Amino acid sequence: MRVGIVGYGNLGNAVELLSGAREDVEAVGVFTRRDDVKTRGTPVFRLNELVTFKDKIDVLAVCHGSSRDIPRYVPELLESFNTVDAYDCHMNIDEYKAVTDRAAKLHGHTAAVSFGWDPGLLSILRLYLDRFVPNSVVNTFWGRGVSQGHSEALRGIDGVIDAVEYTVPRPDAITLASLVSHPLDDIDRHKRVCYIVAEKGKEDFITNEVLSMQNYFYGYETELHFIDESDFKHHKTVHSHRGRIYALGSSGVFKENKHSAYFDIDISSNPELTAHIMLEGAAACHKLFEKGEFGAFSILDIPPAMLMGGGRGAASYL
Amino acid sequence: MRVGIVGYGNLGNAVELLSGAREDVEAVGVFTRRDDVKTRGTPVFRLNELVTFKDKIDVLAVCHGSSRDIPRYVPELLESFNTVDAYDCHMNIDEYKAVTDRAAKLHGHTAAVSFGWDPGLLSILRLYLDRFVPNSVVNTFWGRGVSQGHSEALRGIDGVIDAVEYTVPRPDAITLASLVSHPLDDIDRHKRVCYIVAEKGKEDFITNEVLSMQNYFYGYETELHFIDESDFKHHKTVHSHRGRIYALGSSGVFKENKHSAYFDIDISSNPELTAHIMLEGAAACHKLFEKGEFGAFSILDIPPAMLMGGGRGAASYL
Repeated sequence: MRVGIVGYGNLGNAVELLSGAREDVEAVGVFTRRDDVKTRGTPVFRLNELVTFKDKIDVLAVCHGSSRDIPRYVPELLESFNTVDAYDCHMNIDEYKAVTDRAAKLHGHTAAVSFGWDPGLLSILRLYLDRFVPNSVVNTFWGRGVSQGHSEALRGIDGVIDAVEYTVPRPDAITLASLVSHPLDDIDRHKRVCYIVAEKGKEDFITNEVLSMQNYFYGYETELHFIDESDFKHHKTVHSHRGRIYALGSSGVFKENKHSAYFDIDISSNPELTAHIMLEGAAACHKLFEKGEFGAFSILDIPPAMLMGGGRGAASYL
Repeated sequence: MRVGIVGYGNLGNAVELLSGAREDVEAVGVFTRRDDVKTRGTPVFRLNELVTFKDKIDVLAVCHGSSRDIPRYVPELLESFNTVDAYDCHMNIDEYKAVTDRAAKLHGHTAAVSFGWDPGLLSILRLYLDRFVPNSVVNTFWGRGVSQGHSEALRGIDGVIDAVEYTVPRPDAITLASLVSHPLDDIDRHKRVCYIVAEKGKEDFITNEVLSMQNYFYGYETELHFIDESDFKHHKTVHSHRGRIYALGSSGVFKENKHSAYFDIDISSNPELTAHIMLEGAAACHKLFEKGEFGAFSILDIPPAMLMGGGRGAASYL
């Protein structure tokens, strides 16, 4: 499978690294708006050179940020390519997927949307735990870890030189979710801790922009720390993350039989895990395209068996 | 959805109970070979009366044991009905599914096979953790809990009056799986603890039969306890079970980034959780049949989105 990498931040870099470690994937090129990109060996091209790669790339891995760039670029890229992304703005996935689906069908291409660990792996768990545990209430917790989506959203604010956001579960909410079958709002489950390098005098403007940003920060317990560039260096090296799901349900004449499920994934490198899942999504996307199935597919639309590979049959999983 | 219940042990009883608690399911009848069945209110019929229900049942929930009865009955039942089962003999699922698939396609019906918590829910987790965690090694542990399949296998032995098997994880194996990315054989992960009420003088014969039973006991650390009927009563009331999965993987230039996932489900009533998942399988089976998709489907063959219900859209899971 020939993959083109669009965008070369942490995620694009990880897609390149993981492609190099796989025999079934070839990274054809990195496509970027930036002038200063130095890859691990993959040739670099300007974004407007993509048109000449129409028949040389099976799937484009779109590694831009979710809050602005993915919805802007993917529908356009689908005119000539298949795409995979890890679009992670949960509240807007329906709308994003609908737009992408129309573009993909119009141009006879296939898009794998929101292939990461969440949305992606944890979406699968939420669905099955919701459906397969009777009377189930499912709560998800993220972190402590850097959210690429939220950090990118911060960096998009005028006056922000650099920024990182840590999503941190609230301990009281973790306890509640593990004991009581009750749905908790995201706002009650997490707090958002931001470290920002700002242009002089822009702190108040930035604070206001952050705290009013719908879906990302508005309404959340949010800590803002304005720090200088030398203190910021440390945060650039933090790539760990964590995801947890609690599902509590019950059955029986008096609902006396309790069923409790717990999932926990501890991630050393968020971009690398996301990149790996994107490449699995790219493979599924490529298969669907070859079968003439055009449109946008999330992980929920794809039969699990289609993700099997490496010569293992269904029986080894069942 | 009109459901017929074939077989009325713990599982059939639970399917009846859970059907009664759902608005989208109607239990039309219990079909059994036994004379002494007393249900919670669902009418009881002899198995040979099933033919007259051809147009009155959407899906048959086959609640017989896996080791002998399910493979014997399901292909025949598919001549006139759609079926769902929780066939749980992991080693033979491929063969069982192939036979069932042929029968279903021949007669234009749909079979949902192996819909339980394992195989079923845990199969899904094994697949996604294998594919989505890079360089992943996945180990599953069951118990401590009664295995319906293994207990039924014991009860099928000549001279056994009643029997129950507890599957118990080996603590050394749990520790290993949580720390080291290394696949462990089932035989190294579990021991099998059996309590048996036997006909007088049959103990040696039974011991020999149990210890030589392929896929179920042969090669496993197995404890056999011959007890009398009054001591056995307690074991009939134990329905709890547990399933755990460890997945350890890595990524990075030197595989220096570790990713570890853990899933744990604590089950108060094994038959009720299995029955609930079978009813979800029955609903998917019914949908597939209505779309003219005949054949045998495991949970791995069905797009997750097809399991959604209750008015919730994909976005609420993504």
